[in-house]
Amino acid sequence: MDDTTLIAVASIITAGLTTSFGCMGPAFAEGRSVATALTSLAQQPDASATITRTLFVGLAMIESTAIYCFVVSMILIFANPFWNHFITQTVAK
Amino acid sequence: MDDTTLIAVASIITAGLTTSFGCMGPAFAEGRSVATALTSLAQQPDASATITRTLFVGLAMIESTAIYCFVVSMILIFANPFWNHFITQTVAK
Amino acid sequence: MDDTTLIAVASIITAGLTTSFGCMGPAFAEGRSVATALTSLAQQPDASATITRTLFVGLAMIESTAIYCFVVSMILIFANPFWNHFITQTVAK
Amino acid sequence: MDDTTLIAVASIITAGLTTSFGCMGPAFAEGRSVATALTSLAQQPDASATITRTLFVGLAMIESTAIYCFVVSMILIFANPFWNHFITQTVAK
Amino acid sequence: MDDTTLIAVASIITAGLTTSFGCMGPAFAEGRSVATALTSLAQQPDASATITRTLFVGLAMIESTAIYCFVVSMILIFANPFWNHFITQTVAK
Amino acid sequence: MDDTTLIAVASIITAGLTTSFGCMGPAFAEGRSVATALTSLAQQPDASATITRTLFVGLAMIESTAIYCFVVSMILIFANPFWNHFITQTVAK
Amino acid sequence: MDDTTLIAVASIITAGLTTSFGCMGPAFAEGRSVATALTSLAQQPDASATITRTLFVGLAMIESTAIYCFVVSMILIFANPFWNHFITQTVAK
Amino acid sequence: MDDTTLIAVASIITAGLTTSFGCMGPAFAEGRSVATALTSLAQQPDASATITRTLFVGLAMIESTAIYCFVVSMILIFANPFWNHFITQTVAK
Amino acid sequence: MDDTTLIAVASIITAGLTTSFGCMGPAFAEGRSVATALTSLAQQPDASATITRTLFVGLAMIESTAIYCFVVSMILIFANPFWNHFITQTVAK
Amino acid sequence: MDDTTLIAVASIITAGLTTSFGCMGPAFAEGRSVATALTSLAQQPDASATITRTLFVGLAMIESTAIYCFVVSMILIFANPFWNHFITQTVAK
Amino acid sequence: MDDTTLIAVASIITAGLTTSFGCMGPAFAEGRSVATALTSLAQQPDASATITRTLFVGLAMIESTAIYCFVVSMILIFANPFWNHFITQTVAK
Amino acid sequence: MDDTTLIAVASIITAGLTTSFGCMGPAFAEGRSVATALTSLAQQPDASATITRTLFVGLAMIESTAIYCFVVSMILIFANPFWNHFITQTVAK
Amino acid sequence: MDDTTLIAVASIITAGLTTSFGCMGPAFAEGRSVATALTSLAQQPDASATITRTLFVGLAMIESTAIYCFVVSMILIFANPFWNHFITQTVAK
Amino acid sequence: MDDTTLIAVASIITAGLTTSFGCMGPAFAEGRSVATALTSLAQQPDASATITRTLFVGLAMIESTAIYCFVVSMILIFANPFWNHFITQTVAK
Repeated sequence: MDDTTLIAVASIITAGLTTSFGCMGPAFAEGRSVATALTSLAQQPDASATITRTLFVGLAMIESTAIYCFVVSMILIFANPFWNHFITQTVAK
Repeated sequence: MDDTTLIAVASIITAGLTTSFGCMGPAFAEGRSVATALTSLAQQPDASATITRTLFVGLAMIESTAIYCFVVSMILIFANPFWNHFITQTVAK
Repeated sequence: MDDTTLIAVASIITAGLTTSFGCMGPAFAEGRSVATALTSLAQQPDASATITRTLFVGLAMIESTAIYCFVVSMILIFANPFWNHFITQTVAK
Repeated sequence: MDDTTLIAVASIITAGLTTSFGCMGPAFAEGRSVATALTSLAQQPDASATITRTLFVGLAMIESTAIYCFVVSMILIFANPFWNHFITQTVAK
Repeated sequence: MDDTTLIAVASIITAGLTTSFGCMGPAFAEGRSVATALTSLAQQPDASATITRTLFVGLAMIESTAIYCFVVSMILIFANPFWNHFITQTVAK
Repeated sequence: MDDTTLIAVASIITAGLTTSFGCMGPAFAEGRSVATALTSLAQQPDASATITRTLFVGLAMIESTAIYCFVVSMILIFANPFWNHFITQTVAK
Repeated sequence: MDDTTLIAVASIITAGLTTSFGCMGPAFAEGRSVATALTSLAQQPDASATITRTLFVGLAMIESTAIYCFVVSMILIFANPFWNHFITQTVAK
Repeated sequence: MDDTTLIAVASIITAGLTTSFGCMGPAFAEGRSVATALTSLAQQPDASATITRTLFVGLAMIESTAIYCFVVSMILIFANPFWNHFITQTVAK
Repeated sequence: MDDTTLIAVASIITAGLTTSFGCMGPAFAEGRSVATALTSLAQQPDASATITRTLFVGLAMIESTAIYCFVVSMILIFANPFWNHFITQTVAK
Repeated sequence: MDDTTLIAVASIITAGLTTSFGCMGPAFAEGRSVATALTSLAQQPDASATITRTLFVGLAMIESTAIYCFVVSMILIFANPFWNHFITQTVAK
Repeated sequence: MDDTTLIAVASIITAGLTTSFGCMGPAFAEGRSVATALTSLAQQPDASATITRTLFVGLAMIESTAIYCFVVSMILIFANPFWNHFITQTVAK
Repeated sequence: MDDTTLIAVASIITAGLTTSFGCMGPAFAEGRSVATALTSLAQQPDASATITRTLFVGLAMIESTAIYCFVVSMILIFANPFWNHFITQTVAK
Repeated sequence: MDDTTLIAVASIITAGLTTSFGCMGPAFAEGRSVATALTSLAQQPDASATITRTLFVGLAMIESTAIYCFVVSMILIFANPFWNHFITQTVAK
Repeated sequence: MDDTTLIAVASIITAGLTTSFGCMGPAFAEGRSVATALTSLAQQPDASATITRTLFVGLAMIESTAIYCFVVSMILIFANPFWNHFITQTVAK
């Protein structure tokens, strides 16, 4: 098992786990926010403008943490500095 | 066990786990949202338009995190840059 | 243990786990949705049309995450690109 | 330990775990649905027709995820493409 | 440790675990259903006919997931295709 | 460590774990059912006939899952087909 | 480490774990039943006859699952067929 | 590491774990029962005779599961048939 | 690593874990009982005699399970039959 | 496996896990805050100014802990002092 | 790694874990008792004498389980019979 | 694998885990505090000054525990005394 | 790896884990006590003297279990009898 | 891998884990205390002086357990007696 293989395997596994575990939290959080928004709407239909606006701002911030994980995952697959180092090194040989 | 095998095994396992674990969170979250939507509808039938609209926007955002996981999983199976690297390298030899 | 065996073993285990773990979340979520739908129906029988419609849309979206897992699982068993690669490679030898 | 043994062992273990873990979620979910149906019936006996109809549709959808797991399990035991490949390969030798 | 031993060990362990883990979920679910049925009966004795009928249909569906696990377990012990393959192979030698 | 030993060890451990883990779920479920039966009796003493009858039917169905585990456990100890195979094989030598 | 030792070690560990884990569930369940019986008695002292009778029947059924585990444990220590097989085999040599 | 040592080590570890894990369940259950008894006494001081009698019967049955574990533990330390077998065997040599 | 060392190490570790894990359950249970006793006293100061008496009987029974663990732990440290066997055996040599 | 490979693998895996696990907590916390903000808005629409202001300050502080994790992750990928040390050392040779 | 080292390492690790895990339970239990005492005092200030007396008796009994763990820990560090045995044995040589 | 590599790997992994796990607790705690602050504001808008002041002091103290973890993490990456020791030692050679 | 190193490593790891795990329980317990004290103060401001006095006594007893862990930790770092034994032994050589 | 390396690695990992795990408990506890303080303030604004004073005393005591962990962590990094021993020993050689 040479070095580039090991880097590749580590990148693949980490990319998958980062996205899957990192999406759990935001998914739960968004589910909770949406659920509460719905109960709030049912309870106070007049405040629907404020509620939906606050909901979307909140969803955007929660989604941002999911985006962080997806970004790290994409960096590891498509712009991995360690992988590039080894590939250029191999080419250089 | 040569290198391509290892990459393949890691990709298979990671693809499966990413989808299965990554779908848990969104599934729970959607279940929660739908459940609350139903109680809200039962509680305030007049606000059904606002509720279902907010519900569908929320479901779309939650589904997006499940899509991230599915996308990573599909990339690992069908467009894996590490696998392609090794395959082209093997062909080149 | 040659390479094709390893790919096969990894595919079998991953296919099984992906389906079994990936079905837990949707099952719980659907159970929750159905349960709430029933309490809502008991609470507000007049809104049964809206409730059942929202329920079925929600169940469809939750079922979609279970379908993702089942699809990944079927791909790994019947249309596995890594397996096909090794099989054709073996034949080619 | 030759290759067919390994495939067989992996198939046996995965088939068992897929069914046992995959049935947990649906079992819980059905238990929850049935339990809520009963409380709803006790609360609103007049809506029993709608409630039992919704319950059976819901149970069918939840049972479907258990069926997915059972199907994967049966495929792994009785129609395993990897096992068939190795058996025919062994015969061919 | 020859091959048949390994198959036998894997079958024994998987058969046991499949039944024991697979019975947990249905047991909980049935307990929950029965418990709710009893509270419903205490709350609305007049609806006892509908309640017990719904309960028994529900218990039957939940029991079905336990039966799946028991069936897989029995198949692995008494009608295991992998075991039969190796036994006939050994006899054939 | 010869083959019969391994089969014996696997059977012993699996038999024990199957019973102990498989009895947890039913025990909890029965405890829950009995507990709810008692609260129901305290709440509605007049319905004691229906309640105790439903309770005993429910307990019987829950107990059945415990029986499945005990049966598998006893099969593994006293009527283990794999063990019999190896014993007769050893005698035959 | 010869074969009888291994059987003995496996029997000892399994016997202990079977009893200890298998007693957790029934203990919890009995605690729950007794606790509910007490609240029921405090709530409805007039129904004490029915309550205590139902409690004892319930406790007997829950205790039965603990007995299963204890029986398996005792079988493994004092009437272990695998151990007897090896002992008689050793004596026969 | 000869055989008697292994038996001794397994017996020591199992004896300890059996008692410690096996006492958790009963301890929780007794705590729950005593706690409910106290709330019941505070709620209905007149029924103190029935409550304390039911409490002690319940505690006795819960304690019985703790006793099972302690008995298995003591058997493993002081009346271990496997240990006795090896000791007499060693003496016989 | 000779035999007495192994026995000593196993005894040390088991003694520690038995006490630490075995004390968790009783500690929780006593905390629960004391907590409920206090709420009961605040709720019904007139029944303080019955409450404290029941509390102390209950605490004594819960403490008994902690004592079991402590006793096993002390036996393993100071009156370990396996250790004594090996020590006398070593002296005898 | 030479040294730089090991550093690279450790950096990849740690970077992924740091982001994915580190984003769970903040995601949950933000979900909780947004959810409570929505219920508060529904309950007291007049205080919407204070509520949204407090919400955004709170979200900013919670997001800061997610940022810490993302920063550590980025440092490990793009500005890793250990990696730089080894790279410059390799160049120097 | 000679024998005394192993005994020392096992004693150090066990002593630490015994105290740290063994203190969790009592800490939780005391926290619960103190918390309930405070709510009881706020609810019934007149019964403060009985409440604080019962609290201190309860805390003493809970603290006793923490003391057991601390005692076992101290025995393992400062009065370890196994360690003393090996030290005297080494000196005797 | 020489010594500096090992120190580097341990530092990288520990730095990542310290930040990611150490940020979970504070994130949850801040989420809880902010959530309660919002409900308090909705409940008692007049006390908004005291509430927000107490909130910010509380958030500062909770954030301090996150800072501890971040500081330890940064020390391990940029001011690691063990790493410096080995680097200077290597230079000295 | 000589003996003193092993003792040192075990002491370092155990000291750290003892403090970190051992502080969790008391921290939770103190948080609970303080939280209840605050609700009690808000509910019954007149009893503030009794409440704060009971709170401080309770906090002192809970803190004592944290102190036990810290003491064991400090003993393992600065007054470790096993370490001293090996150091003096090494010096004596 | 020589001895000083091992000590360094153990110190690094333990220091990180001690701080990260040890800060979880206090963070949760402080979050709980602050949250209750806020609800208390909203409920009883007049008692704000007593509440904030009690809150700060409580936070100080909870923070103390976090400080213990941080102190142990800093001792392990900057004043580690085991590390110093090995360093001086190496210098002495």
